[in-house]
Amino acid sequence: MEKTVQELAEFLGGTVIGDGSAVISDIKGLAEAGKQDITFAVDPYTEYLPQVHAGAVMVEKEVPAGDNTLVIVENPRLAFSKLLVLFHPRQSVQSGVHPTAIVDESASVGANAAIMAYAVIGKNVKIGEDCIIYPYVFIGDNVSIGNGTTIFPSAVIHENCVLGERDVIRAHAVIGGEGFGFATKDGKHTRIPQIGNVEIGDDVEIGACTCIDNATLGSTKVAAGTKIDNLVHLGHNVEIGEDCFIIAQTGIAGSTKVGHHVIFAGQTGCTGHVTIGDNAVFAGKSGITGNMEGNKVYAGFPVRPHIEWSRTQAYIKRLPEMAKTIKALEKKIAELEKKAGV
Amino acid sequence: MEKTVQELAEFLGGTVIGDGSAVISDIKGLAEAGKQDITFAVDPYTEYLPQVHAGAVMVEKEVPAGDNTLVIVENPRLAFSKLLVLFHPRQSVQSGVHPTAIVDESASVGANAAIMAYAVIGKNVKIGEDCIIYPYVFIGDNVSIGNGTTIFPSAVIHENCVLGERDVIRAHAVIGGEGFGFATKDGKHTRIPQIGNVEIGDDVEIGACTCIDNATLGSTKVAAGTKIDNLVHLGHNVEIGEDCFIIAQTGIAGSTKVGHHVIFAGQTGCTGHVTIGDNAVFAGKSGITGNMEGNKVYAGFPVRPHIEWSRTQAYIKRLPEMAKTIKALEKKIAELEKKAGV
Amino acid sequence: MEKTVQELAEFLGGTVIGDGSAVISDIKGLAEAGKQDITFAVDPYTEYLPQVHAGAVMVEKEVPAGDNTLVIVENPRLAFSKLLVLFHPRQSVQSGVHPTAIVDESASVGANAAIMAYAVIGKNVKIGEDCIIYPYVFIGDNVSIGNGTTIFPSAVIHENCVLGERDVIRAHAVIGGEGFGFATKDGKHTRIPQIGNVEIGDDVEIGACTCIDNATLGSTKVAAGTKIDNLVHLGHNVEIGEDCFIIAQTGIAGSTKVGHHVIFAGQTGCTGHVTIGDNAVFAGKSGITGNMEGNKVYAGFPVRPHIEWSRTQAYIKRLPEMAKTIKALEKKIAELEKKAGV
Repeated sequence: MEKTVQELAEFLGGTVIGDGSAVISDIKGLAEAGKQDITFAVDPYTEYLPQVHAGAVMVEKEVPAGDNTLVIVENPRLAFSKLLVLFHPRQSVQSGVHPTAIVDESASVGANAAIMAYAVIGKNVKIGEDCIIYPYVFIGDNVSIGNGTTIFPSAVIHENCVLGERDVIRAHAVIGGEGFGFATKDGKHTRIPQIGNVEIGDDVEIGACTCIDNATLGSTKVAAGTKIDNLVHLGHNVEIGEDCFIIAQTGIAGSTKVGHHVIFAGQTGCTGHVTIGDNAVFAGKSGITGNMEGNKVYAGFPVRPHIEWSRTQAYIKRLPEMAKTIKALEKKIAELEKKAGV
Repeated sequence: MEKTVQELAEFLGGTVIGDGSAVISDIKGLAEAGKQDITFAVDPYTEYLPQVHAGAVMVEKEVPAGDNTLVIVENPRLAFSKLLVLFHPRQSVQSGVHPTAIVDESASVGANAAIMAYAVIGKNVKIGEDCIIYPYVFIGDNVSIGNGTTIFPSAVIHENCVLGERDVIRAHAVIGGEGFGFATKDGKHTRIPQIGNVEIGDDVEIGACTCIDNATLGSTKVAAGTKIDNLVHLGHNVEIGEDCFIIAQTGIAGSTKVGHHVIFAGQTGCTGHVTIGDNAVFAGKSGITGNMEGNKVYAGFPVRPHIEWSRTQAYIKRLPEMAKTIKALEKKIAELEKKAGV
Repeated sequence: MEKTVQELAEFLGGTVIGDGSAVISDIKGLAEAGKQDITFAVDPYTEYLPQVHAGAVMVEKEVPAGDNTLVIVENPRLAFSKLLVLFHPRQSVQSGVHPTAIVDESASVGANAAIMAYAVIGKNVKIGEDCIIYPYVFIGDNVSIGNGTTIFPSAVIHENCVLGERDVIRAHAVIGGEGFGFATKDGKHTRIPQIGNVEIGDDVEIGACTCIDNATLGSTKVAAGTKIDNLVHLGHNVEIGEDCFIIAQTGIAGSTKVGHHVIFAGQTGCTGHVTIGDNAVFAGKSGITGNMEGNKVYAGFPVRPHIEWSRTQAYIKRLPEMAKTIKALEKKIAELEKKAGV
């Protein structure tokens, strides 16, 4: 596909500074873009523009740009996303039910949905319009899936779960597996059946190999707009608020309630039965052992405010020196005591 | 289903204190239970009973209960489990081999077992009575599976592995993948073939996306009664004792031997070739770097006794204050030295 | 199979010290080997040879060996690998395309390749000679796979990815899932489409349930000879050099560049957009937060040189004692001050 810079600017609702008639045929990263490519730059990378020789660069405001034509847009990252889709449309998916898919006769499939080869769809399942169900997806009885949701190969949606609209469930995700609940007597563990489900809001993404267990009773919940990375574990009865980020390999134990706009960086662990306030941010490898106030940045294990954690790390680094100082002080005091005849 | 409180008490072998004729139609959590529901309470939650208005509450001993009828039972959690199954029976599974399942003619399938759509069962496989094999389960050659075991969708049981009776293998678990063994020469890694298997005892549960590698020679072993959560990794030749809990995202490196009744909380890591004693308990995110005595509670990385770890954390928090004190002492000593004419 | 010690020594290019005519019928570990078995020993295990009564022991050089015949070889571990394959050949795989496999007519399958039951192969896919594709493997459009590569059950290779020759992709690995990239505005996260791919070099192994995300643009890369364990996460645009080891449950965030021969032990976490030098080694549970020089051994979080980390741990253990010493010094100084009339 070829578009002029001016055509792209109009598509984005942006303004051209420079040659709007130049022809663009692809979109690339700042370091790779050539004269036929459009790219974008945000601070501090706008500094490098004089060394870039692209067809056009999307930026937030006018900056020194060397020989590059600029396209001023409100949000260069979003504009970049839009052009990515324009220049690289996803491969088309054919709607309809593949003859090898096994769809129970009590299930309903919305208009324009695609059920690919070897999918297995249980009793009373409801699949919305425009859904895309890849091969080997297993959908248990009574599952409900909103319009426009995509489920990638081999994901498992266990019985009774509810997915929202426009959700993306990646390969091998397991939604609604039975929570880890046992009653122990005389050292023997007996399973407590977990009969609840998982409810996922709209516009949620669930990463590859991420496991979200069902609730003992009621629902494990992930609210609208939350994005979850790969290999994450959410225990039974966990509740996650709206628009959170849960980065790869994070684990959250049972019954913990998380507010809105919370960020858990990678490999964070959170104990069960605690509450996390809105807008809390946890650095990578955080270990959360209690209730946490919102609107703060935390780090470490046990987790503490990030600034305090950093300061403590600095002191830990100085420990050998501190030990030496203490030894020197002991010596000096001994001498003073000797002198003073103590 | 409807049952009177008296009928439920008899089913559980318990005793009613209050109105045994009240009709119960469901089982709920303490916070959600209404007048038609039965629930349970253990300390410290029994305190809240005066604010609860349930149909009946299962408890261990008589407590102040407001307007609630009590059912005294030996173990309220176990009683709760039994009633969950009573009021919410698992959906029935149809026994027999689905026409799309591919079962090698040398394999044997026990009475009343269910082999669902698209399962693939290899040569000489033995599947016990009453087993449930969900769609897309791959079972390699020579695998043996005891009676009453359930394997959820897409789990992979590699060749030669042995599963016990009444095991539960969750979605996407991988049992018997080749262990991570290489011989390195001049910086190039050559695979050491791992020809052993995995042996799982009776009544074991293996979580979703959990990976248990096969042994180099001999067997990687998980003994009877042990329950493993999601996304756990067990390396080649690991041996786990009876009735352990291994919580989500724990990893145990090759050849480590774990005793009975050991608990690894989430995200624990354990190095290879070490021995863990019976009844050892490891807090979340523990990092185990050596042999560990049993009958103790540990935490931290490197792991140490929990009480010592907690104390150390308190001292770490006080480090800035300690540094200040040392500085003040230095100053005082300098003054004393000046005064003493040192 | 039966072989004399002499025949095995010739097969390995080794030298017999002892009875070359003894007949060997299996290969076992040092502790299990009996008179019909061959085994191997490297230091410090060679010490135990006088207590071993095997048919033959492969060693690097002559050592006191009790009644054991020795076979001197250059690399006993490699020799062990070779004999494992000799005595325990992998079960044979039948080449050809299984009738239930769905292979797009635009795909090409090399000579002698095996495409097993229920595999789904997309448009324009190229599968090399001698490849083995297990059941439920999903291969997206335009994927290219080199000769001799094996893909275990349920692995997912998303569109446009490139695999090398002789790669091993284990069960449930997900290659080329969409990277975790979003543009956030007013607290709402909008996906940045990730249109790049993943490129895997020759002789690479990817563990079970390991997830390697595709690049935003360009390629996420794993170079030749690198071995990756189970449950590992590599973010978008990560680049891994040659002959690295990435052990189980390690996570590496987006755009990080890793050199050659780097070792990440289990549960290591690495932040995004950093550079790791050649031959760097990270102990288990390392937390990498910045660029790291090569040719060093690191540990801890935040990561530091291993020796410094160990020393710091020792000081942390001594903290209670240090606090006591400081208290004692304060007291002594107070007394000195009193005496000096300060």
